[in-house]
Amino acid sequence: MTDTADNAALSPQSGKPPLRIALAGLGTVGAGVIRLVEANADLIARRAGRPIKVSAVSARDRGKDRGVDLSPYAWEDDMTAMAARDDVDVVVELVGGSDGPALVLARNAIRHGKALVTANKAMIAHHGMALAKEAEAQGVAMRFEAAVAGGIPVIKGLREGAAANRVERLYGILNGTCNYILSTMEDTGRDFAEVLSEAQAKGYAEADPTFDIEGIDAAHKLSILSAIAFGAKIDFGSVDTQGISRILAADIAQADSLGYCIRLIGTAEADAGPDGTPGLFQRVAPHLVPFDNLLAHVDGPTNAVVVEGNFSGRLLFQGAGAGDGPTASAVVADLIDIARGMDTGFEADMAFSIPVDGLEDMAPAPAGHRLGRAYIRFLVADRPGVLAEITAAMRDAGVSIESLIQKGQASKDGAVIVAIVTHEVPEAAVAKALTLLEGSPSLVGQPLVMQILGA
Amino acid sequence: MTDTADNAALSPQSGKPPLRIALAGLGTVGAGVIRLVEANADLIARRAGRPIKVSAVSARDRGKDRGVDLSPYAWEDDMTAMAARDDVDVVVELVGGSDGPALVLARNAIRHGKALVTANKAMIAHHGMALAKEAEAQGVAMRFEAAVAGGIPVIKGLREGAAANRVERLYGILNGTCNYILSTMEDTGRDFAEVLSEAQAKGYAEADPTFDIEGIDAAHKLSILSAIAFGAKIDFGSVDTQGISRILAADIAQADSLGYCIRLIGTAEADAGPDGTPGLFQRVAPHLVPFDNLLAHVDGPTNAVVVEGNFSGRLLFQGAGAGDGPTASAVVADLIDIARGMDTGFEADMAFSIPVDGLEDMAPAPAGHRLGRAYIRFLVADRPGVLAEITAAMRDAGVSIESLIQKGQASKDGAVIVAIVTHEVPEAAVAKALTLLEGSPSLVGQPLVMQILGA
Repeated sequence: MTDTADNAALSPQSGKPPLRIALAGLGTVGAGVIRLVEANADLIARRAGRPIKVSAVSARDRGKDRGVDLSPYAWEDDMTAMAARDDVDVVVELVGGSDGPALVLARNAIRHGKALVTANKAMIAHHGMALAKEAEAQGVAMRFEAAVAGGIPVIKGLREGAAANRVERLYGILNGTCNYILSTMEDTGRDFAEVLSEAQAKGYAEADPTFDIEGIDAAHKLSILSAIAFGAKIDFGSVDTQGISRILAADIAQADSLGYCIRLIGTAEADAGPDGTPGLFQRVAPHLVPFDNLLAHVDGPTNAVVVEGNFSGRLLFQGAGAGDGPTASAVVADLIDIARGMDTGFEADMAFSIPVDGLEDMAPAPAGHRLGRAYIRFLVADRPGVLAEITAAMRDAGVSIESLIQKGQASKDGAVIVAIVTHEVPEAAVAKALTLLEGSPSLVGQPLVMQILGA
Repeated sequence: MTDTADNAALSPQSGKPPLRIALAGLGTVGAGVIRLVEANADLIARRAGRPIKVSAVSARDRGKDRGVDLSPYAWEDDMTAMAARDDVDVVVELVGGSDGPALVLARNAIRHGKALVTANKAMIAHHGMALAKEAEAQGVAMRFEAAVAGGIPVIKGLREGAAANRVERLYGILNGTCNYILSTMEDTGRDFAEVLSEAQAKGYAEADPTFDIEGIDAAHKLSILSAIAFGAKIDFGSVDTQGISRILAADIAQADSLGYCIRLIGTAEADAGPDGTPGLFQRVAPHLVPFDNLLAHVDGPTNAVVVEGNFSGRLLFQGAGAGDGPTASAVVADLIDIARGMDTGFEADMAFSIPVDGLEDMAPAPAGHRLGRAYIRFLVADRPGVLAEITAAMRDAGVSIESLIQKGQASKDGAVIVAIVTHEVPEAAVAKALTLLEGSPSLVGQPLVMQILGA
């Protein structure tokens, strides 16, 4: 703790000086953090054992109205300068972006011996290992509860609450935008593009929605959760990532009639590959979720994570996946943890539950040998022989069919929908069947394959 | 850390000595803890920064086969003696019972400067404040994650994950036995007594099920959660507690037809009473839960807790509420926390998030002024004029009726069921209506009132 005038303002309760923070990035989350530390100041001081005090703030545009009074706080035009301030114990990075100013600030904060709290999933997914290693070397805390699943304390749940368990599988709904779009398509029967536009208008989707709808945001979060759950180094690059933009209203109707809803699911599992090599399987993709699964009732911009531990059994964490209030709640929870413990250095090695050098380098597990049931949707020309061609390919690839539904006209160009649900087969067999069908004049466009989420 | 021969066995990773525990009580949970620390030993050592090692065990019957090999561990006939052992850092109390040997052991452990980990909800509900105060004075940790909701890290979720929030309401399903009975009655249409017998045969209910079915166990847990959520002293005595034994198969059918299931819900809310006095309302009672509520899909012996924070919004924690594996998972999570931090004394004041002297004495809030919709079920004699009598009493008490259903014959003595759902009214008005009907020859037995869980 640096010795400054602030130390005069000791907490009446504990005699400890306030925890002093610098806040970089004053978007909705940054403004939310300021509102929260002001609104709940007394309660936070009681729980943290000392007040949490904003010393300085920084953002691109000083003049912008953010609905909060910034005049009590020092303003820094150069956010990196905050890392060097004597009146700052923790730098809160809410700028966003995997590299650039956020990363420069994060590194500088740690190098100056400040604790780092961030909501930046992209930065942690790409640079989390390097940052955690620097934080360990400096003996400062690095925390990122707000980077995954908004206000849900799932990182704490994994890192501490489920710490006694070997995690067998982890899966969840990690992107509120996709979940809002899919559950709205389900409720209204409308098409993807239309619902996306509406989500953009309502502020549930960004103007450039690529990171969300292509599954990249969920993959960032999944790779962070995987590292903690499996004691492995973050491996964002190995997440098999598919988005939701190819899903048709007809897929949702079809799934519904079979007893499923469609959700973008991130799933991670320790998996001995076909040759027995231990590895880690990570995937973000739309899945068919049986109505009796815990995740089937997660609608709107909600997030939910299921952790299957070898002693705990199945744990579900659910709540708001984004928004200023929930995200600020997670940021300030991290600050309270640091306020409770930072003088002792206790927090320093805890970013990923295990010090970085103790995290395993787990090889990415391939998907081909994985057994599962799949939903395969074809758009086909409406002419005789198409079904025979498809079912022959399935037979030749060893894919056993549980049900096949051919529906009437689906699109203006006269294509019709054929949807197949397979029995449990290796994913490679499904891939082989599609290879056999490649180039067939019967098919209109690429088939869409979605796995059915297993119990 | 006491200086003993064990310090020679340093953890290769951190150089820290093992955390040494004494285990009192070797029922299913105690045996589960031993299985867990053995099965996941490597992983626990990686996450805790040092091994967790059982030094001594104690139980009533040394000879009993518990499916685990106890020979590596010192046996104490007198469990209290474990508190004084030099080779013990933490006493794990799994004996049960609010007083008696469990309490003697807990006090002795703390007085000897040992950390205390317990799964004993009754002891914490009755003596948690006194024990936490002694633990603070001694500077030792006291933890009880396993006392509430089995393997679900909900105490951690409240105390740390949601720490930044003013909790507005907390509610949940806190007793797996009741939830199993109610969801089985729902699935099978059978009566309470029959399903209870089956639950006893399957081991989901005790031979003496009173604590479970009368809501006392859930009230223990609720009072513990309330203290943490609202920063208040535990006040188990003020929990308005009703059980599930009066619920008929017909109530469940009736609720179902109206769009509700019936669940035993513990609910706590900071509540300014009718005169504006701040207070804490705590109740355990069967409620009608709308099908679209998060808790309506919680079936079988599962527990679930919803925390509504003023910034986080609604957080849901769900999982197995009992059983050896889940409960052991919570016990060992507490041990890992202590292993990570106990050398620093950081854990000492954290039992209830705020030191005991900082917890508020919140007055119990009365129920009468609380607004809600209620389900009132009468058993009535099948004769003319009964409905007029009931509806007149409702009118005179100011209770507005949303729906009234009279069903055919319900019991062998010719009584029929009349079920009323009220509009939103003060609870006192419902009570007054029932007072007006008291002693009426039309009524067979006491009416049953259940509140409808509000959004």
